Amino acid sequence: MIPRYSRPQMTAIWTPENRFRIWFEIEAHATEALGELGVVPKSAAKALWDWWATNPAIDVAAIDAIEAVTKHDVIAFLTWVAEQVGDEARFMHQGMTSSDVLDTALAVQLAQASDLLLADIDALLAAIERRAFEHKMTPTIGRSHGIHAEPVTFGLKLAEAYAEFQRNRVRLVAARADIATCAISGAVGTFANIDPSVEAHVAAKLGLAVEPVSTQVIPRDRHAMFFATLGVIASSIERLATEVRHLQRTEVLEAEEYFSPGQKGSSAMPHKRNPVLTENLTGLARMVRGYVTPALENVALWHERDISHSSVERYIGPDATITLDFALARLTGVVDKLLVYPARMQKNLDRMGGLVHSQRVLLALTQAGFSREASYALVQRNAMKVWESDGELSLLELLKADPEVTLSDEALAENFDLGHHLKHVETIFGRVFGRS
Amino acid sequence: MIPRYSRPQMTAIWTPENRFRIWFEIEAHATEALGELGVVPKSAAKALWDWWATNPAIDVAAIDAIEAVTKHDVIAFLTWVAEQVGDEARFMHQGMTSSDVLDTALAVQLAQASDLLLADIDALLAAIERRAFEHKMTPTIGRSHGIHAEPVTFGLKLAEAYAEFQRNRVRLVAARADIATCAISGAVGTFANIDPSVEAHVAAKLGLAVEPVSTQVIPRDRHAMFFATLGVIASSIERLATEVRHLQRTEVLEAEEYFSPGQKGSSAMPHKRNPVLTENLTGLARMVRGYVTPALENVALWHERDISHSSVERYIGPDATITLDFALARLTGVVDKLLVYPARMQKNLDRMGGLVHSQRVLLALTQAGFSREASYALVQRNAMKVWESDGELSLLELLKADPEVTLSDEALAENFDLGHHLKHVETIFGRVFGRS
Amino acid sequence: MIPRYSRPQMTAIWTPENRFRIWFEIEAHATEALGELGVVPKSAAKALWDWWATNPAIDVAAIDAIEAVTKHDVIAFLTWVAEQVGDEARFMHQGMTSSDVLDTALAVQLAQASDLLLADIDALLAAIERRAFEHKMTPTIGRSHGIHAEPVTFGLKLAEAYAEFQRNRVRLVAARADIATCAISGAVGTFANIDPSVEAHVAAKLGLAVEPVSTQVIPRDRHAMFFATLGVIASSIERLATEVRHLQRTEVLEAEEYFSPGQKGSSAMPHKRNPVLTENLTGLARMVRGYVTPALENVALWHERDISHSSVERYIGPDATITLDFALARLTGVVDKLLVYPARMQKNLDRMGGLVHSQRVLLALTQAGFSREASYALVQRNAMKVWESDGELSLLELLKADPEVTLSDEALAENFDLGHHLKHVETIFGRVFGRS
Amino acid sequence: MIPRYSRPQMTAIWTPENRFRIWFEIEAHATEALGELGVVPKSAAKALWDWWATNPAIDVAAIDAIEAVTKHDVIAFLTWVAEQVGDEARFMHQGMTSSDVLDTALAVQLAQASDLLLADIDALLAAIERRAFEHKMTPTIGRSHGIHAEPVTFGLKLAEAYAEFQRNRVRLVAARADIATCAISGAVGTFANIDPSVEAHVAAKLGLAVEPVSTQVIPRDRHAMFFATLGVIASSIERLATEVRHLQRTEVLEAEEYFSPGQKGSSAMPHKRNPVLTENLTGLARMVRGYVTPALENVALWHERDISHSSVERYIGPDATITLDFALARLTGVVDKLLVYPARMQKNLDRMGGLVHSQRVLLALTQAGFSREASYALVQRNAMKVWESDGELSLLELLKADPEVTLSDEALAENFDLGHHLKHVETIFGRVFGRS
Repeated sequence: MIPRYSRPQMTAIWTPENRFRIWFEIEAHATEALGELGVVPKSAAKALWDWWATNPAIDVAAIDAIEAVTKHDVIAFLTWVAEQVGDEARFMHQGMTSSDVLDTALAVQLAQASDLLLADIDALLAAIERRAFEHKMTPTIGRSHGIHAEPVTFGLKLAEAYAEFQRNRVRLVAARADIATCAISGAVGTFANIDPSVEAHVAAKLGLAVEPVSTQVIPRDRHAMFFATLGVIASSIERLATEVRHLQRTEVLEAEEYFSPGQKGSSAMPHKRNPVLTENLTGLARMVRGYVTPALENVALWHERDISHSSVERYIGPDATITLDFALARLTGVVDKLLVYPARMQKNLDRMGGLVHSQRVLLALTQAGFSREASYALVQRNAMKVWESDGELSLLELLKADPEVTLSDEALAENFDLGHHLKHVETIFGRVFGRS
Repeated sequence: MIPRYSRPQMTAIWTPENRFRIWFEIEAHATEALGELGVVPKSAAKALWDWWATNPAIDVAAIDAIEAVTKHDVIAFLTWVAEQVGDEARFMHQGMTSSDVLDTALAVQLAQASDLLLADIDALLAAIERRAFEHKMTPTIGRSHGIHAEPVTFGLKLAEAYAEFQRNRVRLVAARADIATCAISGAVGTFANIDPSVEAHVAAKLGLAVEPVSTQVIPRDRHAMFFATLGVIASSIERLATEVRHLQRTEVLEAEEYFSPGQKGSSAMPHKRNPVLTENLTGLARMVRGYVTPALENVALWHERDISHSSVERYIGPDATITLDFALARLTGVVDKLLVYPARMQKNLDRMGGLVHSQRVLLALTQAGFSREASYALVQRNAMKVWESDGELSLLELLKADPEVTLSDEALAENFDLGHHLKHVETIFGRVFGRS
Repeated sequence: MIPRYSRPQMTAIWTPENRFRIWFEIEAHATEALGELGVVPKSAAKALWDWWATNPAIDVAAIDAIEAVTKHDVIAFLTWVAEQVGDEARFMHQGMTSSDVLDTALAVQLAQASDLLLADIDALLAAIERRAFEHKMTPTIGRSHGIHAEPVTFGLKLAEAYAEFQRNRVRLVAARADIATCAISGAVGTFANIDPSVEAHVAAKLGLAVEPVSTQVIPRDRHAMFFATLGVIASSIERLATEVRHLQRTEVLEAEEYFSPGQKGSSAMPHKRNPVLTENLTGLARMVRGYVTPALENVALWHERDISHSSVERYIGPDATITLDFALARLTGVVDKLLVYPARMQKNLDRMGGLVHSQRVLLALTQAGFSREASYALVQRNAMKVWESDGELSLLELLKADPEVTLSDEALAENFDLGHHLKHVETIFGRVFGRS
Repeated sequence: MIPRYSRPQMTAIWTPENRFRIWFEIEAHATEALGELGVVPKSAAKALWDWWATNPAIDVAAIDAIEAVTKHDVIAFLTWVAEQVGDEARFMHQGMTSSDVLDTALAVQLAQASDLLLADIDALLAAIERRAFEHKMTPTIGRSHGIHAEPVTFGLKLAEAYAEFQRNRVRLVAARADIATCAISGAVGTFANIDPSVEAHVAAKLGLAVEPVSTQVIPRDRHAMFFATLGVIASSIERLATEVRHLQRTEVLEAEEYFSPGQKGSSAMPHKRNPVLTENLTGLARMVRGYVTPALENVALWHERDISHSSVERYIGPDATITLDFALARLTGVVDKLLVYPARMQKNLDRMGGLVHSQRVLLALTQAGFSREASYALVQRNAMKVWESDGELSLLELLKADPEVTLSDEALAENFDLGHHLKHVETIFGRVFGRS
């Protein structure tokens, strides 16, 4: 966890305090269910909840001190709670195993983290949508391979990003469901010493699904899928960040990250305005992706469980969710405040002497009876002249002057209309946003 | 693609022949739709389909030879088709771009691959289910950290695997939906030269969804999610393979891969029977996981597209699906024919002198009024003696002889009953299989 | 292995024929050494080498057919050789284990592959060096964050690439040494049934080092380091490829991949010249990097060995080396034939109205007595005007007209000399190439 | 950085204080060299060093507060230093760019981290060596595929680990050299505003090599190689950790992690002693490996540099080195205090009824004139009986009783001597440790 790439709400989820609070709730709910079953006195749960109602502070240092002796975190926690609550606390954790607490608590934390991430995506989607409609009809050149291709609009670029993050939202909802399960099944998952109804009770209270079959631990394919999904979302962040970085290049300069008054781009070159936020996002995406493989390697635990996954999750649980939360929020800010330069977009569109319309001419020639190959050759020989002139020559004028091109000047000119390219923008917006 | 790790049906999907067949169908369906729109003569599609009805062989070498000159695969293919079909073929590909064909064809191939993989998982699930019910009540020791914990049944181990692959099936269905889209949207996805209805027609004919917004290419977050899902499935394969490897260890030997008569385990040591299939599966899982990161790196293409994803997909499209198909089938064979040794399981269960029942004693002492700490200390000091005797001493006998343990002999013995551990097996089977 | 990304020499290393030839040589050399020790008759090695001298074809299909029965590749090979050589062949493989042959053969293959890769790097270095000196003094803008910074030369860019691949060469030499070891140590590496002198003999004959301690297998940290090194080299390829892709962007166009006459850039847009080779290299780099993690996961084999590494190596042995060989050769071709446009470089350099000289002015002001902060503010306020004019205004003229800038016009103009930036090019070339 | 997996010395390297101290030293050394050149007054460096000699505290909070305004870390630092030192400080950083400071400082930090890691490896090597000699002749079964193969000694297992970490030491020394370079070359690496002698001076003072050619930044292939090397070392840690985990399995129990008196293995099962340290190391290895790919992705920065690498390094710089430092120290502790059980090793060795000697019998039969195939068949049919008896039958007795086995009882028995397997232990120890 890097403070500068962290936001407080997500960070709070991963504090010891929050973890211990969840542990307590699991234990207390379980004790309640055990009381209903008559396994422990009903007074036990009451004692726990009565204490909890005093809103006690969690003394993390005290718990850590106990753990330093017992070398076992859940026992240390139970011991500390017992010190606070008194004799009734000995009924806690009856028939349970540490992992019942640890794994269910992790499920709660990951579900909490997912909820923040979903809210982040919603905010990002809202920002993208606003800017997309703002620039729905702002023409700009579409580029494949970094080379001018044909016109699009800046709104279309954002519509694509919107659709991508909509997909990511759906994926994250599925990933959240995958990890939001509760296991209270005892030492090796057999419910040997605890009734399945306890699990059902705790699950219901915590908003989790019951884990159908656990083996002391909740199976780690669930977590692998969760972190893999975060890796996909991070890669989408990188994609949009890369787009901004390209647009901000000196020679392109069709858009820029917002540049605040006090900001200095370089200690040496005062004129510089660098796309540092999106470069930063590119790096953060690498990190979130880097956590996918350890999560995948965590799946193949030995027999009913080993604890090798635990250290991995101490890192990637916080690091992946905190980083992604920060990155989504940063990207939202970038999109929200992005400086967009339509005039420069138009200038760039025009700089190629009309080459971006070559395909339409090609089609027109084919329609007029030329073979595809002949059409291609005719267009290409004129296009190459424009290309080599660096846009000084005009494709339209060259075509008009080419004796083998038998189309009339009017018929030729008709192919150089930007409107051809924008006529389906509404259609696409309708598909993506459900409105246009 | 490694022949020894490949099966013919999956391999066939990735042959040039299959790819060209899909290309043809995309082009012919598109020409048909263009004919309906009046953009091209209706005779064009008819000519294409008439030729196709002759079930023509695809001359891959001829197409490759053309590509060697044009350095463009789709143009080479179109040229070859034109040579076969004649003049009407010039109407093919009107307003389309190569990626319309390439990406939609990849979607078809990945959907075909998904269908095989889903069938593989179904076969695996069937094998696991059969063996799970066969051994529903076969007792065996559950192990955490590789150390004996408490009893489970061999059927429960398989139930866990069943639930895991059920989850993988759900994930794969979602991943299939993610990649099964059709884009026929032209040079930069604007439909500048092709009507969206063409896309809708082709999508419907090929059983694909319409890509809401494409940018010459179908966005690669879809493929990233697909390959990430394969990586999760591969990790689940590794988990079950690792279980078998552990069970086959000389000292454990509770199960073994089937050993065929002609097979030699070692050129030097004729007695050896090695778990080579599951070790192999462990390696194959590493490979399928290794393809996840390149797929994630493919997402951030430049602007409307660059072609860096293409080489990656030429590798991982076949390699990931072929390897996973092989691995799933191999794992199904391992499960199906696994030699299971219940007698050895029982022997291992008994070898610890009853230590596996320690938790029940602990609970019984707590119920009898001992504090948790006192109970723990009483059990542990006797348990340690058993442990240090390597199972020669009996925990039950030691407890009976311990003067501080105030439970009667009968009350103590009652905790050493295996039935306690198996009483919820039916419950878990019901959850997992919907029957018990 | 993807044929289009493969070259014949590297591919030949990974054929069954080459593998079986190496196996034979290992066995024959070992038999020779065993003969010297008197363990087997000297006639045995003679029989083997006599047969080998007839330059026999390796019947891969026959060996595969035997393996289909024995399910053991080395036994199948030995059986086939025995069929060819006759009775004396029974002395082969005395006291050896399959891995002695397999692992030592892999070492030979990886050493052969390394030699080709080293030759590839040498060819690349030669191409870079030639172009670097050709453009040693060709001015071009240096960019940080994609934004114009200060002038460099195109030769300097190539000098950087040269130094990077020199480092990669050193790393590959070390990686080659890491994997080029011979182990002939028997079933678990104890030389129980074979004298260490056999290993020494085979190692010397094959140009390998003796593995100090093996455990049936050569330890896989060696291979992990080897493939990790290939991953680093691939990343350097991506770096230079990315540079070319950026330079070829329509708005930049300072360099282009060579465009052959018959080539078509797009089926739709005949004017397009796309950096497809370097985009392809970007994808290939992702693949070679993707093989690093499986190689790292191969290290932790169980006890003296398990065979999980084997399937991984069947993929990545060929795939990583063949792909990297192809990529290095392709990059060499790109560098060798790269179209470089100095006029466009100069035009881009000039387009910012002199902003690239802002730092020199800043320093001159500081030298003239202004505080750093004051200097910065003076330069920045004029620089921002130039920036906002899109290079129409001139920084020099604005500074001359700024009353608070107390430097004389001559003193100001002195800071706008390109020579300042190029005065240490020779120094750097001397460092990198050992000549300038 | 996870506190529980961190040690203070390594953590101290990554504190802001340490970073700012290194920054100061770079700036002061550079100012000194600039003074020698006459670019700035010699008094400037003196003023800096005089202040430094007062051993001033670094006010991190104050620097952070300035950065919150300037959004530039180096400018914030310089501003703060200027506030402390006064007017002479304005000569600092003349002609330098932020990255000169940042990258050189990172080189110093990574070199410091490398020195700690090298010391860690030395401590680990010492522990392994001590235990290796302690158990040089302790017989234990060698296992391939988890199946008993032939005898080795426990010392041999450790000798293998020693050799592996010796290799890792060599690799780390090379990796340290790769990253320990100094670049003070200005805005785009041209020394336009700073003389190369400044770089040479700073490099010498800091114990770094001069970076031959930099581009504002030190090239990231160096860091990629560094982190890849850490990934290999981590994988070796996993290997040895996995060995311990296997040896501690209940059924094997040939060695155990040290179990301290206060420790509780399980909240539920008081008899459990789990290999939690080595399982933890397995997870930590996954993390360190996970940092390799982001480091590789950092190589391909855009043009002379972008800043995407920076956020990645803020994570993996500390996380990879701190985690690996902790893991090496933990592994050293495990090895140092490992409980080794020779009696159990012998018991396990004997449990297979002599099957571990089967290869020697096979060789003896071959020597006696049987064909390899006939020998194999004779041994295998008896070996199978032993196998199926679970070690109750004796291979030697069965062979004696087999009429087709024509060797005398004495000749047969001679092959069942453990001494055969241990006769080259000294040789191997000599190779590995240079003494035996």
